[in-house]
Amino acid sequence: MKCYGSSEILKKLEYKNPIFLSIIANTKTSNIPGITGAGASPELTDYTPAADLELVIYGKPRCLPEIPQTVVGDDATPTPAVITKACLEVADIPLMVVDAGAAVKPDVPYIKLGDKSGNDIRTGKAVPNAKKLFKNGIMLGKTLSKLTDHLIIGESTPAGTTTALGVLIALGYNARLKISGSMPENPHQLKHEVVLEGLKAAGYREGDVVEDALRAVEIVGDPMIPAVAGIVMGSSVPVTLAGGTQMTAVCSVIKGINVDYDFSNLCIATTIYVAEDETSDINFITNQIADIPIFALDPEFEKSSVKGLKNYLKGSVKEGVGAGGAMMVAIQKGKDIDEIRLKIEELCKKIF
Amino acid sequence: MKCYGSSEILKKLEYKNPIFLSIIANTKTSNIPGITGAGASPELTDYTPAADLELVIYGKPRCLPEIPQTVVGDDATPTPAVITKACLEVADIPLMVVDAGAAVKPDVPYIKLGDKSGNDIRTGKAVPNAKKLFKNGIMLGKTLSKLTDHLIIGESTPAGTTTALGVLIALGYNARLKISGSMPENPHQLKHEVVLEGLKAAGYREGDVVEDALRAVEIVGDPMIPAVAGIVMGSSVPVTLAGGTQMTAVCSVIKGINVDYDFSNLCIATTIYVAEDETSDINFITNQIADIPIFALDPEFEKSSVKGLKNYLKGSVKEGVGAGGAMMVAIQKGKDIDEIRLKIEELCKKIF
Repeated sequence: MKCYGSSEILKKLEYKNPIFLSIIANTKTSNIPGITGAGASPELTDYTPAADLELVIYGKPRCLPEIPQTVVGDDATPTPAVITKACLEVADIPLMVVDAGAAVKPDVPYIKLGDKSGNDIRTGKAVPNAKKLFKNGIMLGKTLSKLTDHLIIGESTPAGTTTALGVLIALGYNARLKISGSMPENPHQLKHEVVLEGLKAAGYREGDVVEDALRAVEIVGDPMIPAVAGIVMGSSVPVTLAGGTQMTAVCSVIKGINVDYDFSNLCIATTIYVAEDETSDINFITNQIADIPIFALDPEFEKSSVKGLKNYLKGSVKEGVGAGGAMMVAIQKGKDIDEIRLKIEELCKKIF
Repeated sequence: MKCYGSSEILKKLEYKNPIFLSIIANTKTSNIPGITGAGASPELTDYTPAADLELVIYGKPRCLPEIPQTVVGDDATPTPAVITKACLEVADIPLMVVDAGAAVKPDVPYIKLGDKSGNDIRTGKAVPNAKKLFKNGIMLGKTLSKLTDHLIIGESTPAGTTTALGVLIALGYNARLKISGSMPENPHQLKHEVVLEGLKAAGYREGDVVEDALRAVEIVGDPMIPAVAGIVMGSSVPVTLAGGTQMTAVCSVIKGINVDYDFSNLCIATTIYVAEDETSDINFITNQIADIPIFALDPEFEKSSVKGLKNYLKGSVKEGVGAGGAMMVAIQKGKDIDEIRLKIEELCKKIF
């Protein structure tokens, strides 16, 4: 496990009793052709969050006949839901699913924070219920803090890097060419144009800064962002944000809401495939916001016997469904990465 | 606290870290005039579960302009949600709301187990999704067992004593004239007729026994019953069923599903107003099912300065929203009944 920044927080996280929260949401932005690889077609990305969580819980999706796969090149890459499932199972970590606005609802018990999925951010009206999601998130964070001493929050939001870029740009951060993506070829130009179109639709010109962080989400964000920001701000226990550059948008919103927010109880955990991605720079973005340590987990898929998993080395998928954070918590619970990878391979052979 | 049966289980419950679950559900049966007092009119009973939980969380309902009150005689009786709220607040117990099928959804974060409210049991098709609710309940019980060492399960289901009667009769128990109710005059005859009409509509004659417990729920139950049966059977920690005679129907379903079920981790906690009710007999019903201890909590409303609370002494309301179990857990957390009653009165003065 590589650490960018201070690893001091690990002392608070060791030997703790964690809850893994999986936030699901959709934004119609994912239906823009070419913007995301998180689904077999732009339309099918509506199903990806629900199908991912059904896979984590049941070992196969129920809302779709097929497994969600990122299709790049010849081989389909297994969804990161398999990584998350493997980690939660080997380490016996309780999972709770939180719906912040999934287009398709999973066939599992879940906590409902919001109902509506986000709109295409080109409308400039991306998340009309952002404030409500934030408030509900606060309540949930308070409640869960009474039940655990470490919250790990993953997410499944197709096109979520585009909406993250939207929020970061709206709040004045330099994030252009720095945001990650689920495909080896990161469509930076398309993502940037989509964001600018959304800002323009809401009456902002390039370079304008939206003063109100939740307003930025309303314009060009997605429902996951205010929900997770709320959970973090409502929580009184250490929180690991399990995700890639999307989680930096959550941090930017938290800082936008409270410029004096104490980030010392927060860290980001992601995969090495995000952390070392040459088409993005999570550290560069995070450093603009606050001193937040980033842990990068390496499942060492170069050693894998499953061909599709090796696509992660080529930049396919990279992260999702909190895969990085799930590996981190499994390691904290005493598992080693070989055992985790073996479990991932076993699941891949069974599922695909 | 009075105990009927062995109080052995208390040893397992002391000094524990509880979660209070509040299950909300509706059955169209509550729209039958005269069957329940849990709402200002038969139609408004659709709002009662959501309004009750909003009151517990926010101190006032949001889905309704008015406070849910059981209207009997001249004085309105404060909803038992006030008792539950007082107990959870004085003892700082985390609350999670679970929707098993509320007709109106509360404006709070909640765990979704089911969506549809139950049908009028006179149709003989009361809960078409009973099996699904049971399965989802099992999953939730398993997850929550990893987060707590004591689950307290309350419910808010208008006309729930009628549906409980339905399930008990369908499963061959002697429950006629023994089931409780929210009004001083318990409409036993009406409830019984409604149950028989439902059984008949499903092809059963009086005295027939439905062999399959979840089938009994499908015919004449309500969505709360299979959801709670599932949570209990999925749980590996001690469970307190916080409710009156409705909870005996849950126990009957558990026994129907597994005749060898070990009830030693289960107890019922209710109010003294149910336990000493002369129009019903919770002990008589429970004794037919299994050796399940019943704890009866007395808020001593005869000492109360709030007039409406004294209606509880006359048989109005009696129990609901897990009021009895909430008192039990607050006492376990070191609070005494005078402190609890003072808090209830303080809330009543603020709210009503």
